[in-house]
Amino acid sequence: MSSSAPSPTAFRSSFAPASGAFEPVDPDYAARVRGSFNRQQAMHLIGAEMTRLEPGRCEIRLPYRSANTQQHGFVHGGIVGMIADSAGGYAAYTLYPADASILTVEYKMNFLAPARGDTLVARAEVVKPGRTLTVVRADVFAIEGEREILCATTQQTLITLHGKADR
Amino acid sequence: MSSSAPSPTAFRSSFAPASGAFEPVDPDYAARVRGSFNRQQAMHLIGAEMTRLEPGRCEIRLPYRSANTQQHGFVHGGIVGMIADSAGGYAAYTLYPADASILTVEYKMNFLAPARGDTLVARAEVVKPGRTLTVVRADVFAIEGEREILCATTQQTLITLHGKADR
Amino acid sequence: MSSSAPSPTAFRSSFAPASGAFEPVDPDYAARVRGSFNRQQAMHLIGAEMTRLEPGRCEIRLPYRSANTQQHGFVHGGIVGMIADSAGGYAAYTLYPADASILTVEYKMNFLAPARGDTLVARAEVVKPGRTLTVVRADVFAIEGEREILCATTQQTLITLHGKADR
Amino acid sequence: MSSSAPSPTAFRSSFAPASGAFEPVDPDYAARVRGSFNRQQAMHLIGAEMTRLEPGRCEIRLPYRSANTQQHGFVHGGIVGMIADSAGGYAAYTLYPADASILTVEYKMNFLAPARGDTLVARAEVVKPGRTLTVVRADVFAIEGEREILCATTQQTLITLHGKADR
Repeated sequence: MSSSAPSPTAFRSSFAPASGAFEPVDPDYAARVRGSFNRQQAMHLIGAEMTRLEPGRCEIRLPYRSANTQQHGFVHGGIVGMIADSAGGYAAYTLYPADASILTVEYKMNFLAPARGDTLVARAEVVKPGRTLTVVRADVFAIEGEREILCATTQQTLITLHGKADR
Repeated sequence: MSSSAPSPTAFRSSFAPASGAFEPVDPDYAARVRGSFNRQQAMHLIGAEMTRLEPGRCEIRLPYRSANTQQHGFVHGGIVGMIADSAGGYAAYTLYPADASILTVEYKMNFLAPARGDTLVARAEVVKPGRTLTVVRADVFAIEGEREILCATTQQTLITLHGKADR
Repeated sequence: MSSSAPSPTAFRSSFAPASGAFEPVDPDYAARVRGSFNRQQAMHLIGAEMTRLEPGRCEIRLPYRSANTQQHGFVHGGIVGMIADSAGGYAAYTLYPADASILTVEYKMNFLAPARGDTLVARAEVVKPGRTLTVVRADVFAIEGEREILCATTQQTLITLHGKADR
Repeated sequence: MSSSAPSPTAFRSSFAPASGAFEPVDPDYAARVRGSFNRQQAMHLIGAEMTRLEPGRCEIRLPYRSANTQQHGFVHGGIVGMIADSAGGYAAYTLYPADASILTVEYKMNFLAPARGDTLVARAEVVKPGRTLTVVRADVFAIEGEREILCATTQQTLITLHGKADR
């Protein structure tokens, strides 16, 4: 234990991403990613939209619909998982070469608060890109008016299938 | 290393559930569980059905629908997660008292093969029941004709909310 | 829900491994695996031994030592994780070609009971072998006299590094 | 997709902790936490030290020792897991009442780079404190001279045992 207390800011900075600037190898990554998202019929089924996209980051929003709920009227945990999985996958996919496709290897999700509110938003960010495997973190927030409540957090591993374009 | 090779059967038996016979404390567990499942609108949205239920075990089936697919035409990984999450939760919920409700704390899912085929089936079994926390394992199989392909496997933690009936 | 109750045996059989017979591609897998295990100084540090090895399966035992404990006198959860991680990795490694090495991509462990008793035993079994990724399940039991208590269960993903022999 | 690109800073801020200021209910949390850590013989076994402690945050350092290595000479993944598990548990334990003890429910760890270098440092931060369950994230960095390489990242769930002081 160092004798002088560290400033909270210095301590927390270790949780910032290694770099704020991911470099996509495919200059047309945005069209490629959005095209793939639009082909996910399951995203249309639940009413999810991709609302932000940057190299290594993706945001997906899901307005409240009673059709998406579980037995208590909150959004079903599996649907919370769907938008986190898709946001995470597409955050990774921004960094893939043009001729590669993506599969989820695995993910782990903790549920932290009920998924209530007007809208859910999943925000994903690449933690570690790699030639074969990419690790991503995604948080899901429930938005009620001005408030954002963190309702789930996910750690996810994706694999790159080189030489197999998404379509 | 023992000098005589163990029989594969003896070795594998360690993976069998601790007990084949879970004792439900609520004799009406089946009606309670199915009532809760039927209130999950998200299960209707994707077309999932509960096809088997025993103390500590649950099976959910999902016939193929193009509305549930991702960009390659397979069932979306998040939807595979939905049926695994629900099967796991309801396997646990069979063992809960009548006046308790259930929440998923977390789950972790590995995807092992594409979720193609005519039907997906999620089979869940309680690994360790507990007063507060229950741990469940769920496997998801893709059924193509006679063949069952293991396409995902899940480890899940559920919490019991005592004194809060499901509805 | 089918009207006739399924036999518990039939239901549970779905959790059996897809095949009891994994085929190693390297006939000398046992010497290769044990050589690698013996080079893990961390296994010597804690006193772990490899006590069984078959294609796709591995068992590691850890006799109780107070040096391995956490604050309540049970074996430290991280050490429970060590033997599960090693058993899982070596279960996978039995199926690798001779010129490949292995890395753990990720694992997820649930703690189910205190790791007390005379000995801990980790038993791992491959769920899905693959050219690049292998998924393994490992259970850790605490042995007290005649009783085996399941104290942790793990799901793990390993990667094959082709063309890089372990030493 | 908004037509104007968001600034990376605004986007990343969603990953900051909900609050930089956790309020401990036990004013003597630091003595309680360090006392518990010192009773973990397994931490002495591997040579780990607690080097920082704040409400909701903990840092553990592990100098390189060959006794802690796996077959390639890197620190064993299970030992990386040990320091992440302990850092995460003690980050949570800072926020517990004086008469409560702590158990790890589960954790999931991704390995991102080999654990080489002079020292490993695990930094953990509470994501969501709760009366019964607390969710924590921990990152493990390998320090080589001036460089810190993120080598593992963990998501962990802890349970509070009320009315059972740690010793």
